[in-house]
Amino acid sequence: MSLQSVDPRTGTPFGDVIPETTSDELDQIATAASAAAGAWSLTTGAKRATALRAVADRLDARSGELVEIADRETGLGSMRLAGEVGRSTFQLRMFADLVESGGHLGVTIDHAVPGAPPTGHPDLRRMNVALGPVAVFAASNFPFAFGVPGGDAASALAAGCPVVVKAHPSHPRTSIVAGEVFGDALSAAGAPVGTFAVVHGMEAGRELVLTPAIRAAAFTGSGAGGRALFDLASNRPVPIPFYGELGSVNPVVVTPEGAPDGSLFASAYVDSLTMGTGQFCTNPGLLLVPSGSGLTERITVEASRREPGVLLNAGIVGHLHDEVARLAALPGVRTLLAAPGPTTGGYRAGPVILATDGTAAMAQPELLRTECFGPAAVIVEYASEEELLAVLGLLDGCLVATVHGDEVEPLSATLISTLSGIAGRVLWNDWPTGVAVTAGQHHGGPFPATTNSLHTSVGTAAVLRFLRPVAFQSVPGALLPTALQD
Amino acid sequence: MSLQSVDPRTGTPFGDVIPETTSDELDQIATAASAAAGAWSLTTGAKRATALRAVADRLDARSGELVEIADRETGLGSMRLAGEVGRSTFQLRMFADLVESGGHLGVTIDHAVPGAPPTGHPDLRRMNVALGPVAVFAASNFPFAFGVPGGDAASALAAGCPVVVKAHPSHPRTSIVAGEVFGDALSAAGAPVGTFAVVHGMEAGRELVLTPAIRAAAFTGSGAGGRALFDLASNRPVPIPFYGELGSVNPVVVTPEGAPDGSLFASAYVDSLTMGTGQFCTNPGLLLVPSGSGLTERITVEASRREPGVLLNAGIVGHLHDEVARLAALPGVRTLLAAPGPTTGGYRAGPVILATDGTAAMAQPELLRTECFGPAAVIVEYASEEELLAVLGLLDGCLVATVHGDEVEPLSATLISTLSGIAGRVLWNDWPTGVAVTAGQHHGGPFPATTNSLHTSVGTAAVLRFLRPVAFQSVPGALLPTALQD
Repeated sequence: MSLQSVDPRTGTPFGDVIPETTSDELDQIATAASAAAGAWSLTTGAKRATALRAVADRLDARSGELVEIADRETGLGSMRLAGEVGRSTFQLRMFADLVESGGHLGVTIDHAVPGAPPTGHPDLRRMNVALGPVAVFAASNFPFAFGVPGGDAASALAAGCPVVVKAHPSHPRTSIVAGEVFGDALSAAGAPVGTFAVVHGMEAGRELVLTPAIRAAAFTGSGAGGRALFDLASNRPVPIPFYGELGSVNPVVVTPEGAPDGSLFASAYVDSLTMGTGQFCTNPGLLLVPSGSGLTERITVEASRREPGVLLNAGIVGHLHDEVARLAALPGVRTLLAAPGPTTGGYRAGPVILATDGTAAMAQPELLRTECFGPAAVIVEYASEEELLAVLGLLDGCLVATVHGDEVEPLSATLISTLSGIAGRVLWNDWPTGVAVTAGQHHGGPFPATTNSLHTSVGTAAVLRFLRPVAFQSVPGALLPTALQD
Repeated sequence: MSLQSVDPRTGTPFGDVIPETTSDELDQIATAASAAAGAWSLTTGAKRATALRAVADRLDARSGELVEIADRETGLGSMRLAGEVGRSTFQLRMFADLVESGGHLGVTIDHAVPGAPPTGHPDLRRMNVALGPVAVFAASNFPFAFGVPGGDAASALAAGCPVVVKAHPSHPRTSIVAGEVFGDALSAAGAPVGTFAVVHGMEAGRELVLTPAIRAAAFTGSGAGGRALFDLASNRPVPIPFYGELGSVNPVVVTPEGAPDGSLFASAYVDSLTMGTGQFCTNPGLLLVPSGSGLTERITVEASRREPGVLLNAGIVGHLHDEVARLAALPGVRTLLAAPGPTTGGYRAGPVILATDGTAAMAQPELLRTECFGPAAVIVEYASEEELLAVLGLLDGCLVATVHGDEVEPLSATLISTLSGIAGRVLWNDWPTGVAVTAGQHHGGPFPATTNSLHTSVGTAAVLRFLRPVAFQSVPGALLPTALQD
């Protein structure tokens, strides 16, 4: 089996054929990662920080070249892609700062307390240690920030874990070049051989998650693909944590007072819906508005003015078409802006607007639970607050949920509380696309948004996915890890 | 199906038959837990703390009665059992202090930073919220501390989660009475109906972990049972986290200088091995000593002086017998103190000592990986440091690993580092039985010791198993949860 780059603007393959990673090659990579694990986990925070910063510097220096390759493979545009390289290097430097400070170690020291238990206890000191080699499954839609040099790889390396990235087939060439830049910089900074590798091919990905040397996996992608890999990870003889970010409908609720300027709201909503041709895991694909507000009509007018955008690959085009067609055919659903027809000469889609009411949505909850990955919106017009809350009760877990409201409406507090019960992030009068990289971020959420709602794939806390605590009891100072010494 | 109390000192059933929980009853319990989840999670930390302390007070007040029932069902002795009630109430009060302080919320506040991303970002504030109803599978060997009123129930309730405990069939009566005391105290303190329940029966346990309303499960018990339930939890349509503590061989390594007083060491080792008739998940079942040290002989003499102790049930007797017989039959294994024969008139076992050398252990790694639950030791006599390290390389993940050494030996540092790679807790010149309840504790470890090495079932951090983060973006102060307000 082999892969090839395709220009999504034309649908034309280009460049050399790229072979998939064979089982033998994967074995060698896993063996090398396993051999590197001890040394990499024991490097000091300062040295790991230096290595991560070296990677960031090298990626920044090669940004122009990387963006050019990625733009040809993804059609995402050079401005967006340059921003993504910047986001990736920002993340690498953020994790460098974190490990340099030792903040990822979660050091807790309990000095001995004399006396009988439970009050009395021996000296106990706890810190986090690396899990071992990590498999990272790169996303299609962010070739850098959630790709080979993205947050999963950066956080796992920061934790002290070697990383094997399974590249996404939508941008194999970008993945190869980014992987070379990344790996070369790590090597030059003294990381052990085997600390970083990139593999290609779906079967290699399946084998990777089953490889005994792999101790955890992180994934960003589709619900079906993520669930299949989660099942493999969970059913191994030695199960491993699988941190899958599987996507979400990301509901946006507009209260009766929530869009005082309907035109402005419609324009901003369509901006968020069509950003990156809707290929964001935080895309606001489900909108709940008061019936009779006129927002549906304004949004349709606004969306009808937008040009089609480029989609990443034929699979996304087909999936979007199929899911939109399935929902559009349901009773009570109006197609206000048509589903894209078959595209020729490239992968493109314009905005799609479906509308329905609360009754139809409650009778057919797939309208509330289906992610149409791309620039497609389902607008539910609710007749009353009671109906709105009943509709929200049918939602699945999601990455992010948004309220557009007025602070003084009693409904607003109810919505913030209700949505925090199903989402990993709750927004107020803002847009979900764009996920800030900070300590306070949480990019996660209940299943099916992710396979592990306790963890985030964005922000400094992402490093915690790859660390486990160890307590040291009555161990003398000279034998303790440095971080635990008095 | 029904259950009955059995006096393990005589093997005689006593008391009324206890019916297993039916599917209909389980449905009602799950529905009530689900209905309670919102209100319980939104109670203030102060109110939850008051409720947890009320439970502790009520358990302390009824300690005499509880100990009497438990002693008859478990044969663990009233002193040990009274200590266990004290440990349980200590834990409840510790978690009360934690939630009162808000420490479990993990509040992180990032004020807005103006400018373009990635440096600029909106106001983001993160806190932990409760997962929802939790299933707790109580252990056989600690009817209180890991039973109905144990750390799993206490930490889940502290997190704001309703709890359904599946009682262990070794002490159904104890579980019923402890559950009544627990539930009544919670109700009197104002907890919603449905916040706490106890169910009985293996099939009820299987159904419980598959119940959609259940959002996480905690388990302490056997490897086979825990793995089976982990598989059910992971393969649900909506998978849930399953925190299983499955047991461990808990290796103890003696360095060449590690036991300057061999008799003292032997006596202390046998004390730890036979504590609670060896029915501790932290029991030191694998001992590695320098060959020719004489420690094997001293331990055998010491162990031969100990009286048999009471085991909890017929299953543990049979399993211990079978596992010891299997290991004893392996080539190169010497039985120095015999396996217990068939017991009559009760469930009892005296210490068992098997010995082998490094060569045989490496050829048959089951000698290093089989937990013989009870007072049974496998002693591996190693010929050299190299052989010792090679043997340690074959160990599975474990809860706790211990070094008895001299601080100035270079081997000591190597061992502390090596063992921290496979264990959740590393001890120095101490004994693993007895797990202190502190903030710095970690009672966990890599599979097969647990199904999730990132978490602990003992200590304040146990509460984190039942919480997930939510980030609030640009939410005005009046609409934020109190803990996130400026």
